[in-house]
Amino acid sequence: MTSTSTAAVHALAALPQPYLLFLGDTTEAGFAKTAIGLHDWAPEVCVAEWSLPGCPISTGLPTMTPAQARAAGARAMVIGVANGGGVISATWLPALVEALEQGLDLVSGMHQQLGDIPELAAAAERSGRQLINVRVPPRGIPVGNGRKRSGKRVLTVGTDCALGKKYTALALARGLRGIGVDADFRASGQTGILIAGSGIPMDAVVADFSAGAAELLSPDAAEDHWDVIEGQGSLFHPAYAGVSLGLLHGSQPDVFVVCHQPGRQHVLGYPDYPLPSIEDVIDLTVRLGRRTNPAIRCVGVSLNTHGMTEQDAQAACAEISARLGLPTADPMRQDGRFNRLLEACIA
Amino acid sequence: MTSTSTAAVHALAALPQPYLLFLGDTTEAGFAKTAIGLHDWAPEVCVAEWSLPGCPISTGLPTMTPAQARAAGARAMVIGVANGGGVISATWLPALVEALEQGLDLVSGMHQQLGDIPELAAAAERSGRQLINVRVPPRGIPVGNGRKRSGKRVLTVGTDCALGKKYTALALARGLRGIGVDADFRASGQTGILIAGSGIPMDAVVADFSAGAAELLSPDAAEDHWDVIEGQGSLFHPAYAGVSLGLLHGSQPDVFVVCHQPGRQHVLGYPDYPLPSIEDVIDLTVRLGRRTNPAIRCVGVSLNTHGMTEQDAQAACAEISARLGLPTADPMRQDGRFNRLLEACIA
Repeated sequence: MTSTSTAAVHALAALPQPYLLFLGDTTEAGFAKTAIGLHDWAPEVCVAEWSLPGCPISTGLPTMTPAQARAAGARAMVIGVANGGGVISATWLPALVEALEQGLDLVSGMHQQLGDIPELAAAAERSGRQLINVRVPPRGIPVGNGRKRSGKRVLTVGTDCALGKKYTALALARGLRGIGVDADFRASGQTGILIAGSGIPMDAVVADFSAGAAELLSPDAAEDHWDVIEGQGSLFHPAYAGVSLGLLHGSQPDVFVVCHQPGRQHVLGYPDYPLPSIEDVIDLTVRLGRRTNPAIRCVGVSLNTHGMTEQDAQAACAEISARLGLPTADPMRQDGRFNRLLEACIA
Repeated sequence: MTSTSTAAVHALAALPQPYLLFLGDTTEAGFAKTAIGLHDWAPEVCVAEWSLPGCPISTGLPTMTPAQARAAGARAMVIGVANGGGVISATWLPALVEALEQGLDLVSGMHQQLGDIPELAAAAERSGRQLINVRVPPRGIPVGNGRKRSGKRVLTVGTDCALGKKYTALALARGLRGIGVDADFRASGQTGILIAGSGIPMDAVVADFSAGAAELLSPDAAEDHWDVIEGQGSLFHPAYAGVSLGLLHGSQPDVFVVCHQPGRQHVLGYPDYPLPSIEDVIDLTVRLGRRTNPAIRCVGVSLNTHGMTEQDAQAACAEISARLGLPTADPMRQDGRFNRLLEACIA
């Protein structure tokens, strides 16, 4: 009850921030990527971290108890760790209850709903705090209307899942603001929503409302305002292409950036599905996207060169840039290449 | 509780049939289209009809009370009428409770959930009957896996919504069986599910699972078996294209038939969106569909010539057939043209 009644909080309204980041008892940095991503991309909304005894992982933030964090201004504790099944570990419950009792709301991006756990539901009721599941889409999403909205939009699309669409969108939004452009990051997945403090988890929306949800995500804005929309999936993905198309149609992007990881040969987890070329992604995105924005065009390529040497990364960017005639950069190596990509966006 | 716990019944298992068709107090045949469609397409599962006093509409079936229908073999009463908001009218409740008490399950394709109405939940509990909402997708739908399945598949696609994809699929399935082909109609919307007795309401599936739901809908089959899959929406629809793409990818159709209504200029309800040409639909369906079935091809066009004279209908079919070099027929005028479309399907 608590979980669903508060689900709409994260629609376009903001999540309660700043956060205390909870690391649980995780021993692997990989499982703490939500907390680490929050600290990397939204340090201004992170007050401190807290973990259970024996947890060796740290984001680098100071450690505070819920009471200390509340006194320091925190409004919510975010579950910043994941595990295999996306479930809330029983060993975390005393800490989660303590946070509620000390006046913090609880925010989770996991599959399991906070309100489905009786101890948490009872503690939230007792303390008058909110249990917020950011993976639950808001209620009342309308069917898409296809009406052209004001303002400018850039969408990150990909040759596959999990290769940098969120990081690219975050870097573009930060970069645009850095050169004086009024820009907002629009989150379409749970980690992005935690970072931005609002957004819509596109993958959890009922299919009939996909485009409608995307329309809500980037509402009418001033003509010189840019929404930088986090992409999802890929139009070539055998399972998730429908989500990608609903997001593309509803976003009505003026421009898009293709995200790719050099060397990836197949769709992640689908060895029978070869990765599409960047050219194929550009062509299909233009063809489908022009249904709701006839002026759509590709302005550049974002490469995920993680693990490559600086020299190899530069060579990969140079090769693709020459081949396509488009600025190509790794946004994690914010260099001259990235600046050219930014400039192409708003040109 | 009752509604969700029985939701999985209509997945691949069959609905309780045959039916008593409930017409309520409707005074417009248009609102009784579920009952009329059931009688047209699945007369073998319709025992009788029942309505409230003053209802002038009839499907042509005999009238029976729930007790009489139960004695005549009916296993469920279907709400065969719709109204504006897709809600259960309070004036129907005594009749719905009577059906449960007389030993019939209740089946509904409306938006409102039967189990959310306290009187119905209590009556179902008391009588041990099921409340079945066919618009609720089954639980546990997996993410699509993209694996090629055995058997043959034909999908109906469209230039728009609401122009004959369901009727075309029903006619193809019946026609194929008529020429000795082992064929099943696979329902992807609530009315189709009521007719077929099973299926998945694609528009109600969470977007991440669209392709997975479509994979479930037409499972592995004998190599000479045909699944005739009811299409949804249109790849050119500004709100529903994501559903159409998930269904296309997950269905892996070998062949498809494009459904169109001559004279329709704009997407229904979207005056700013011109209807795509049949050629555009063929081209885009092939381009997107070949991702999961490289051999996909268009075998013909189904025209909805409702309201046209026989001469105009024939002329429209002849013109499109000559232009595209494909069999073109109105399946509601089952003539030589339709037979050629059937033969092209399995050629």
